[in-house]
Amino acid sequence: MRASHLEEFYALLRFPSISTDDAYINQVSSCASWLVTKLTAIGLQARSIPTDGHPIVWATNEHRAGRRTVLIYGHYDVQPPDPFELWDSPPFTPALRDGVIFARGSADNKGPIFAHILGLQEMLEETGDLPVNLHLLIEGEEEIGSPNLALFLCANREALRCDVAVVSDTEMVARRTPTLTYGLRGMAGLEIKVCGAKTDLHSGIFGGAIVNPITALAQLLATLHDRDGRVAIRNFYDRVNPPQDWEREAWKHYPVDADQEIVKQAGAAVLFGEAGFSTLERLWCRPTVEINGISGGYQGQGTKTVIASRASAKLTLRLVPEQNADEILPALKLHLEQHLPRGVMLETIGEQSGPWFLTNPHSAMGSAAQRALRTAFNSDAILVRGGGGIPVASDLQRILGVETLLMGLALPDCRWHAPNENFPLENLDAGILLNQAIMDELAATHFAGDFPPARKANESGNTSTVRISASDIGAR
Amino acid sequence: MRASHLEEFYALLRFPSISTDDAYINQVSSCASWLVTKLTAIGLQARSIPTDGHPIVWATNEHRAGRRTVLIYGHYDVQPPDPFELWDSPPFTPALRDGVIFARGSADNKGPIFAHILGLQEMLEETGDLPVNLHLLIEGEEEIGSPNLALFLCANREALRCDVAVVSDTEMVARRTPTLTYGLRGMAGLEIKVCGAKTDLHSGIFGGAIVNPITALAQLLATLHDRDGRVAIRNFYDRVNPPQDWEREAWKHYPVDADQEIVKQAGAAVLFGEAGFSTLERLWCRPTVEINGISGGYQGQGTKTVIASRASAKLTLRLVPEQNADEILPALKLHLEQHLPRGVMLETIGEQSGPWFLTNPHSAMGSAAQRALRTAFNSDAILVRGGGGIPVASDLQRILGVETLLMGLALPDCRWHAPNENFPLENLDAGILLNQAIMDELAATHFAGDFPPARKANESGNTSTVRISASDIGAR
Repeated sequence: MRASHLEEFYALLRFPSISTDDAYINQVSSCASWLVTKLTAIGLQARSIPTDGHPIVWATNEHRAGRRTVLIYGHYDVQPPDPFELWDSPPFTPALRDGVIFARGSADNKGPIFAHILGLQEMLEETGDLPVNLHLLIEGEEEIGSPNLALFLCANREALRCDVAVVSDTEMVARRTPTLTYGLRGMAGLEIKVCGAKTDLHSGIFGGAIVNPITALAQLLATLHDRDGRVAIRNFYDRVNPPQDWEREAWKHYPVDADQEIVKQAGAAVLFGEAGFSTLERLWCRPTVEINGISGGYQGQGTKTVIASRASAKLTLRLVPEQNADEILPALKLHLEQHLPRGVMLETIGEQSGPWFLTNPHSAMGSAAQRALRTAFNSDAILVRGGGGIPVASDLQRILGVETLLMGLALPDCRWHAPNENFPLENLDAGILLNQAIMDELAATHFAGDFPPARKANESGNTSTVRISASDIGAR
Repeated sequence: MRASHLEEFYALLRFPSISTDDAYINQVSSCASWLVTKLTAIGLQARSIPTDGHPIVWATNEHRAGRRTVLIYGHYDVQPPDPFELWDSPPFTPALRDGVIFARGSADNKGPIFAHILGLQEMLEETGDLPVNLHLLIEGEEEIGSPNLALFLCANREALRCDVAVVSDTEMVARRTPTLTYGLRGMAGLEIKVCGAKTDLHSGIFGGAIVNPITALAQLLATLHDRDGRVAIRNFYDRVNPPQDWEREAWKHYPVDADQEIVKQAGAAVLFGEAGFSTLERLWCRPTVEINGISGGYQGQGTKTVIASRASAKLTLRLVPEQNADEILPALKLHLEQHLPRGVMLETIGEQSGPWFLTNPHSAMGSAAQRALRTAFNSDAILVRGGGGIPVASDLQRILGVETLLMGLALPDCRWHAPNENFPLENLDAGILLNQAIMDELAATHFAGDFPPARKANESGNTSTVRISASDIGAR
C-alpha cells in the first residue's frame, strides 16, 4: 500500500464523527465532505445527501446497460470513545504499532470502507473504469440505529436499483480467515411492568398483607426458562429449523475452538445455555429470551424498607428462521398473563422486532463472494452465521429486493465500541484485493434471475428530493 | 385549650426542622433552642445537648428519692415536605381546618410531644410539682435513623436511670380509640449480587451461550416463597410463636375492618399474603421476606441489547418473637447458595438487623398505661402490635433496661411523611389529659421489681461530657 494511502486513512480516522453526540455534528458533516472530495478525486460522482440526521454519502460511476449493478454499504460514523483513560493512545490520533492501526472507528467501519475506496481507486487508475455499475452508500448514523437509512432507501428505491449488495460491517472469525456471514438472528422485544399498590409502601407496616411487585416480577421471569435453559413459552420452538447438513459440515471448518473463544471474549467463568446444543448452534440457530434490564424499588446506597408500587423488566428475544415476531410476541404475552402471580397487574409496552437474515452461500452470488474471498486471502472462506442482527442487511433485502453479501474485515480482537479499537494493516491490504475481486466475480457471474440493467442514479428524478419524512414511507 | 397554647404550638410547627437536609441545620438547632426556652419557662431544667449531629433536648424536674422516675421520649425533627405542590397549605405555615391542624411534623412528632409539654405545664402550674421524677428527651434525628441516640443513652446511662419509658411516636388505630402498642416486628436485611461475565455483553452476539445474571437472580428470588406466599427458607418458622389466646381475644376488639383498612391505606386492589392467617396476624405475628429493590442491566428509555455482568437485589426480613437474626440471616444465605442457578457467582453484603419488641400490656406498667388511656379518652384501650420497628423502643429497653410504653396519638389518616400531614386538636387535648393520667398512674403503681430511686440527673458527672463518639460505645 502506498504511503499516501496510509496518510489519507489517518485523515479519515482523525474526524471524531460521533453520531450520537450533537456536540460533534459539524465533525460528522466534515467527515462526509471529506469522503465526497476523496470519492470525486478518484473519478466517481459523489454527493453528500442531507437527511433529518447526518448526511449519507452516495457515489456512483457512470452506469452502463448490460452490466451488473453492485451496491456497497458502509458507515463513516463512530462510537463515542469514552472511557478515554483506557486508551493507550488518543482515540482520534491514529497510532501504528506492530502493523496495527489504533483509532476509534478503525475497524468499525472506516477501515473496511476505506479498503473499498482504495480498491475502487486502483481499478479506476488501472483500467479507467469499473467492471460493474456502482452505488457506494456510506451512512453517518449506523451507530445510532440508522434512523434515516430505510427512509432514504425507500425514497430512492428506483434510483438505487441493483443486483446485489456488499456489506463489510461484520467480523472475520480469525486472522487470515476469510469469512462469509450468510445468516443472522432476528429480534423481538418488549417491556414488562408489574404493578401492585398505587404508591410505594412501608415494608414494615404493610409487609405480609400486600403483594410485592418485585417478588411477583421475579417469579414471573423465572417461568420463562426451564432448569435446562430451554425457553418455556408454549409453541416457542414450533418454527425453529435445525441447521442443514451442509451447514453442520461447513461449521466443522470453524478455525478456533468456539467454546474457548466465547469464554475468552466474554470474560465468563463458564458457558451456559440450552441443553443439547453446541455453542455455535446456540448462538446461531437457537432462539433466546434475554432479560436486558430489571428495575424496581430502592436502588441507592444502604436500605430502604419499601414495598415498591411497581417493577419492570426489559426483554429481547433472538429469533431464528422461520420464527415470526408476529406470532412469538403474542405467545410471550400469553405466557406472561398465564403465569402472572396473584395480586398484581401486568402491562407490556414497547413492542419491537427486527427480521432474521438468511441467504444461501452457494447461490450464484454467494459463490462469487466465496471465490473473491479466496482470491483476496489465499484461503477458503469460512461460512458462518451470526448471533446478532445487522439491520441494514435486512433493509437492503427488504427494500431493494437484493441478496446481501456480508464479507467483514474486522477481527474478533479489533475491540469494536471499546477502548483501543484497532485494525490491522494486513486487513486493509486484503480488503483492497477483496474489493477488486468481488467486483470482477460479480461482473462475471451469471445470476439465476436475469435482471434488466439497473437505471443510472443520475437518471432518477428522486435524487434531488431525498430529504424525506416518515409520511413518505406510509405511501409505499 | 388556651389560645396561647395554640399560638405556641404554631410557633413550634413553623420551624422547618428537617434533619436530613444540611441546608436546615440552623433551623433544626433553633427549634431545639425554642424547646429549651419553653421547657425552662414551665419550670423544668432544660438543656440542648450537642451531638455529632443535631442536638438532643433533655429536660428534668428536681428528682426526689422515693418517687418513680419516668422517661418521656419524642423528636422535634421532621421529614422533608416535598412534593410541595401536593400540599393544600404551606407545610410550615400551620393551618386550622375543621378542627385539624395541617403542617409538616404536626403528627410526627411535634403534636404528641407538645401534648406532653402542655400536660407537664398544667400539672406544674396546678400543683407546683410533678408526681414523678422526669426525664424528657426530645431528639432531632429520628427521621434520619437516630444515629446519635444510642450513643447518648449509653454515655448517660447512669444519669438517665429510670423505671419506665413512655413514647408517643406511634399511631392510634382509629379516632377516639386509645391504643397501646405492646409488640413490634424486628428486622434483618442484606443485599444480594449475582455475577456472570466480567463485563456487559451484547445479547445478540453472546445470547444463548452465556449466563444472564438477571435471569439467574429472578430464578433465585423466585425460590424464596412458595405459591401460597409462605417463605421457603428451611427452618425459617422454627421459632415463630402463634399469638397467645389473650391476644386473639384482644384483637377481636379491633375497631375497624382490618382488611378494608389496609386495602384503603395501601391503595391496593387486593390483599395478599401467607395462606392460613388473618391480615392482623400476617402484619403483626408472621415474619416476611421482602425484596425492597432490584437492579440490573439497562434501565433507561427504550432498548439496549445487553447481557448485564451483574444484577442485585436488596432484601429485608421482618422477624417476630422468638426469631433471631443471628440464625435467620445464615439460613437465608444457605438457601441462596443452595438455590443459586448454574453459571453465576453469589455475593451477599450489607447484613443488618434490628430487634423485635414485645412487652406485656398486663404488667403493672402496662396496666397503668391502659388505665391512663381510659382516663384520657373515656374508652377502653385497644391492645395492638405493629408491623414495623421503632428502634428507640428497643434502644430504651436494651440500653436503659426499662419497659417502654408505646402510647401514640396520631391517627391513620394523619399522613405521616406525606403531603398534608395533620393532627386533630382533639388529640392534642386528649394528649394533655393522657400525659397527666400516665404520670399519676405510674406514680401510684407498685411495680413488680422494687427499683431504688433513680439518681438525679444533675448529680451525674456524665452530663457535661455527652458529646461522644462510637469509640465510647465499644467500652460498654
